[in-house]
Amino acid sequence: MMKSYLNYLFLCLLLSGASSSFLRAENGYRLWLRYDKIADTLLLEKYCNLINQVVLEGSSPTINAVRREMAMGLSGLLGRQIDFADKPLPGNILIAATPKSSAMVASFKIDKKQMESLGNEGFYIFNTKTSKFKAIVITANTDIGILYGTFHFLQLLQTGKDISNINIISTPKIRYRLLNHWDNLNRTVERGYAGFSLWQWHTLPDYIDQRYIDYARANASIGINGTVLTNVNANADILTPEYLAKVAALANAFRPYGLRVYLTARFSAPIEIGGLKTADPLDPGVIEWWKNKADEIYSCIPDFGGFLVKANSEGQPGPQNYNRSHAEGANLLARAVKPYGGIVMWRAFVYSNEEPEDRAKQAYNEFKPLDGKFEDNVIIQVKNGPIDFQPREPFHPLFGAMTSTPVMMEFQVTQEYLGQGIHLTYLAPLYTECLDADTYAKGQGSFVRKVIDGSLYNDTLSAIAGVSNIGNDINWTGHPVAQSNWFALGRLAWNPRETPEEIADEWIRMTYLNDEVVVAVMKQIMMISRDAGVSYRTPLGLHHQMAWHHHYGPGPWIKDKPRADWTSVYYNRADRNGIGFDRTKTGSNAVSQYFPPLDSIFGSLQLCPEEYLLWFHHVPWDYRMKSGRTLWEELCHKYYEGVDQVRDMQKSWEALKGRIDDERFTHVQSLLKIQLHDATEWRNACVLYFQNYSGMPIPEGLEKPDETLEYYMKKERKYLPGS
Amino acid sequence: MMKSYLNYLFLCLLLSGASSSFLRAENGYRLWLRYDKIADTLLLEKYCNLINQVVLEGSSPTINAVRREMAMGLSGLLGRQIDFADKPLPGNILIAATPKSSAMVASFKIDKKQMESLGNEGFYIFNTKTSKFKAIVITANTDIGILYGTFHFLQLLQTGKDISNINIISTPKIRYRLLNHWDNLNRTVERGYAGFSLWQWHTLPDYIDQRYIDYARANASIGINGTVLTNVNANADILTPEYLAKVAALANAFRPYGLRVYLTARFSAPIEIGGLKTADPLDPGVIEWWKNKADEIYSCIPDFGGFLVKANSEGQPGPQNYNRSHAEGANLLARAVKPYGGIVMWRAFVYSNEEPEDRAKQAYNEFKPLDGKFEDNVIIQVKNGPIDFQPREPFHPLFGAMTSTPVMMEFQVTQEYLGQGIHLTYLAPLYTECLDADTYAKGQGSFVRKVIDGSLYNDTLSAIAGVSNIGNDINWTGHPVAQSNWFALGRLAWNPRETPEEIADEWIRMTYLNDEVVVAVMKQIMMISRDAGVSYRTPLGLHHQMAWHHHYGPGPWIKDKPRADWTSVYYNRADRNGIGFDRTKTGSNAVSQYFPPLDSIFGSLQLCPEEYLLWFHHVPWDYRMKSGRTLWEELCHKYYEGVDQVRDMQKSWEALKGRIDDERFTHVQSLLKIQLHDATEWRNACVLYFQNYSGMPIPEGLEKPDETLEYYMKKERKYLPGS
Repeated sequence: MMKSYLNYLFLCLLLSGASSSFLRAENGYRLWLRYDKIADTLLLEKYCNLINQVVLEGSSPTINAVRREMAMGLSGLLGRQIDFADKPLPGNILIAATPKSSAMVASFKIDKKQMESLGNEGFYIFNTKTSKFKAIVITANTDIGILYGTFHFLQLLQTGKDISNINIISTPKIRYRLLNHWDNLNRTVERGYAGFSLWQWHTLPDYIDQRYIDYARANASIGINGTVLTNVNANADILTPEYLAKVAALANAFRPYGLRVYLTARFSAPIEIGGLKTADPLDPGVIEWWKNKADEIYSCIPDFGGFLVKANSEGQPGPQNYNRSHAEGANLLARAVKPYGGIVMWRAFVYSNEEPEDRAKQAYNEFKPLDGKFEDNVIIQVKNGPIDFQPREPFHPLFGAMTSTPVMMEFQVTQEYLGQGIHLTYLAPLYTECLDADTYAKGQGSFVRKVIDGSLYNDTLSAIAGVSNIGNDINWTGHPVAQSNWFALGRLAWNPRETPEEIADEWIRMTYLNDEVVVAVMKQIMMISRDAGVSYRTPLGLHHQMAWHHHYGPGPWIKDKPRADWTSVYYNRADRNGIGFDRTKTGSNAVSQYFPPLDSIFGSLQLCPEEYLLWFHHVPWDYRMKSGRTLWEELCHKYYEGVDQVRDMQKSWEALKGRIDDERFTHVQSLLKIQLHDATEWRNACVLYFQNYSGMPIPEGLEKPDETLEYYMKKERKYLPGS
Repeated sequence: MMKSYLNYLFLCLLLSGASSSFLRAENGYRLWLRYDKIADTLLLEKYCNLINQVVLEGSSPTINAVRREMAMGLSGLLGRQIDFADKPLPGNILIAATPKSSAMVASFKIDKKQMESLGNEGFYIFNTKTSKFKAIVITANTDIGILYGTFHFLQLLQTGKDISNINIISTPKIRYRLLNHWDNLNRTVERGYAGFSLWQWHTLPDYIDQRYIDYARANASIGINGTVLTNVNANADILTPEYLAKVAALANAFRPYGLRVYLTARFSAPIEIGGLKTADPLDPGVIEWWKNKADEIYSCIPDFGGFLVKANSEGQPGPQNYNRSHAEGANLLARAVKPYGGIVMWRAFVYSNEEPEDRAKQAYNEFKPLDGKFEDNVIIQVKNGPIDFQPREPFHPLFGAMTSTPVMMEFQVTQEYLGQGIHLTYLAPLYTECLDADTYAKGQGSFVRKVIDGSLYNDTLSAIAGVSNIGNDINWTGHPVAQSNWFALGRLAWNPRETPEEIADEWIRMTYLNDEVVVAVMKQIMMISRDAGVSYRTPLGLHHQMAWHHHYGPGPWIKDKPRADWTSVYYNRADRNGIGFDRTKTGSNAVSQYFPPLDSIFGSLQLCPEEYLLWFHHVPWDYRMKSGRTLWEELCHKYYEGVDQVRDMQKSWEALKGRIDDERFTHVQSLLKIQLHDATEWRNACVLYFQNYSGMPIPEGLEKPDETLEYYMKKERKYLPGS
């Protein structure tokens, strides 16, 4: 009998743990839109009492999306079917409508200025009551505002918030909030670590995968309103009629969710698919060709967003092939899409093939002189730092430097240099570190986020883009926790002042469990993860120390390559005297690209924040750090600290066993094991390599590397994804 | 009020149709193991009455898998939790155990001979009763037999069978039942149309994806007991210690499900990863290297299945590089794995780089003289037809020709030439057409399936392999209906005498709905699909008429390529006089490779079955066919018939709207639209091209092609998957 009872228990465990089975697979597909029934029965009762029925008014495709989401969300979260009505029956209602489409909402007489302040995308959620019923009202000026408000309201339920006293006004601080997909037409994804591209070009335009809809839902739920479908290393074929029909089908699928499509434009397209002899931006035939191409695009995609362009960078064609400037190139495309309200995002990630200059300086040097020379529908897309998405970089000096041309942010959501699909790295701290940086462009308080949201220079365009980490893996992002980076990108694009902690808190509650222990443990892991990633790879301002064939593992020894600035030694400059890249006046003087007093702060060995020390200075090995340690000792300690942090993350994660579903628990647990191994490899390889130059011992108390430098230098990694 | 009621109805529809939403996504991941609650309440009650509790005995990893599957399957299908017990309580029981592990099963005193007949993998399911209870008994000699029996029993419930009077004995007719994955280490899949490879080499051995387990479950459910993980165009790196550790991790995950792993062996591996100067199979160093490699493999994978080898074919290295025979090459590897019970599957898909001979004859010419010269753990793997997985081929003449060396079947499950991930093509009719073909090797009744199951020549080895159509798409196979081909491969490997109709019937009930209308409609579509695919591509025995850069669209005009036998004109031989490849005595005399009377039948214009006519004969355009039409007219009619069949499939599919879930309905509906377009392109391109030679009009009553031949010849398709 006892045994049978145990067996019964086993079955119950099996069934409750059936999340890892076919039946209730918690495979991550649902992202943060899980809508599982609320476990807290008291709270559930409260919610049900306040939502007896839902009143929706209007009938646009977007309102239909609201209806579907509301039905799905409420029936899931509340575990019962909610009555949908056009007119309220007796009882408490949830109403979602614009004042224009709903006489009832209009009757609430919301302050006109308040409504105006919501703009085209904002929403207002509040409680009210009439003589007949209590109401929760979601309103906005547009249907998209209603959709955003609906997602926000569902999130209140997912995160267990009080809904009896809501008074939320929310508007996006940034106008264009975009994903950049580096997806190729053959479905490989450059720097993609989550499988193939979502876009099944082969079956478009006929087949609209449910996944496209779910992708749009996920984006709408975090306020992302644009997506660049194709790789910045562009292929002109996307602009042929055959492919434009496919793009139009995606645009149609995304439109109800407020998500516009954009494409990358290959500058040489007029030659490659247009049959012209040149792509010179001043050539009348070329001007005509782009104008006609824009006409063609807008005839099938009336709300086409515009173009993203990588020109004259890493082998891509561009206006400089014809001795024209980036401004002349950008304006060519901008004039073509301007009549339709389209924009051009022109990337500042350029560096010369002749490497005459510190690469960190080149984008500034190239673009600063062009300030004010761009059409007013051009925005310059600048990576957060001046090198290339390194684990930590100081903010890019172009932020704040362009007073008459708007500048937008390009973050990398995919973890090219931060462990790809394997390492747990929550990127919001990286994003906010940059957004909160003070450029001093107009004195203290000239934060990067004020450049980005357009408020510093009163730009009419404002934008933020994230290089997508999304692929066709069931869970979208490969690493389960990498979903949080997509989420964070959207949330910070909507409101750059949100904190990483707030964002992580909500993401965990929605994606895992609205449970304090789970939230505390996961948040702690997430919050140290990026620091850990910096420490075991490139502490104290080191950068670009990765292997040659891939950007996953260490390679501080990389040298003698076709370009010096593609090597590691170019950046670490380790020698008998010290380590670091002198970017002060005695060196490349990159510090001069920053506004005072930053130029002096970064330029001073004493004042420079230690996390950027070796970015700006070549520092003697025995230099005394704030900790009292020598630079060499501090460097070692940082490397070891990074690995210790991964060990801590691993230990903390174990506390979640049995508290979250098995499938995702095991997945992250397994990846943390690999991460610890890789972090140790990074640490050992770098410490041993730099030790060759410092000639100093690894400090007492730190474990000795278990392999030789030669071992790490010989280690090959083949067949890595995403390259 | 009326409106509110309608809204309510709408919500209900929404919720019932929520299968296409996040909540109850019917995305195909669950394959045929869906285990949704049985809708027929009477039947459900019957089942529940007969299964009050489940008694499992034993505790191996396989029995644990049985327990999990039983818990998942029964709780899903019956919609309630079933008590698991070691000893029965009062009530009716389901017991699954071997007589050895269960005193109770032993007490049923099953006939000893009957138990012996079950062998290592068979199972026996029957009803019985004792004084205390009624019992359904699943028994076998091994735990794997119990697992197979469990899947079979669950299938009885899924398909609504009576379980009060079961008496089923089932044993596999073929010993090795395998999938061949043409998966590369970078996760691309050659001829793969369902995304990336399932194998995430990068995170192995540490991370065991739930998908690996579900893959093993699906295979076990249809009796597949082996999987070759890597591409036949092989990469020696898979044999390095780093990768063998990853292979071992997969083997561990699969083992409880009776699924063994095999690898492809690159013949030149001793040079590439062994550092030897030669891969000569008679070189002592090479012999030693393979012996050591086998020792190493078996030390980490004790039940490693063996090697699959493509040698001296399409550029792959092989023994002929050293003037050694295929037998000498195969025996080299066979001797290495023999001590461990491993086998070598040596592919007969070879053709000379010098094309001295009709390609259809070369495998026979190469291998027939080697009959009997192979080690007894070598089996020759032969494609179903002598060219290359064409939509229709006569069976390969090697079947039946090797009297002293076992020959196994290689079917293609992935649809390289049959519409890839787009066209609905149920392949069981292709498989059984070949299996049921009579080789006449030992007189009438010497069916191919008797060669394959070893009964014709009393082979101790018998095997069947299918080139996998599985990738990381959520639904595994890209096209939803392509799942049926994986299913059919397993079912026919277990029992080659099953009919395509029976297999389709069960697959539909399990994968879609146990509903007569759904079954009738889908079965009809599936049963005509392969015939349609032959007719609109290569009717009447035509073959190898595809485009140059891909195998998806038409290219009957392909000529002047590096090899004549890679062109279409080499095979169609269309000229003013007629069309077809003369393989009779006046031509290549390939007919002579078949046993009498087939040589005469295939060799006779009058006797040759019309579906193979142009395979064996060059036939005048005005030749009178059985229908009374000229060859030209008949050819046209066949092409048009193929397209009409697709139209019929499309029309029939519409009848399923609302009867099956929206997501899969829409997916297939969309793909059928593309298929109709492509089928029309195949038809028009081929008819227009051949018309150049026949000089005859398209018969009255057939619609005229809407494009010119030039249009089709110019049409490009880029970025197709799978190449």
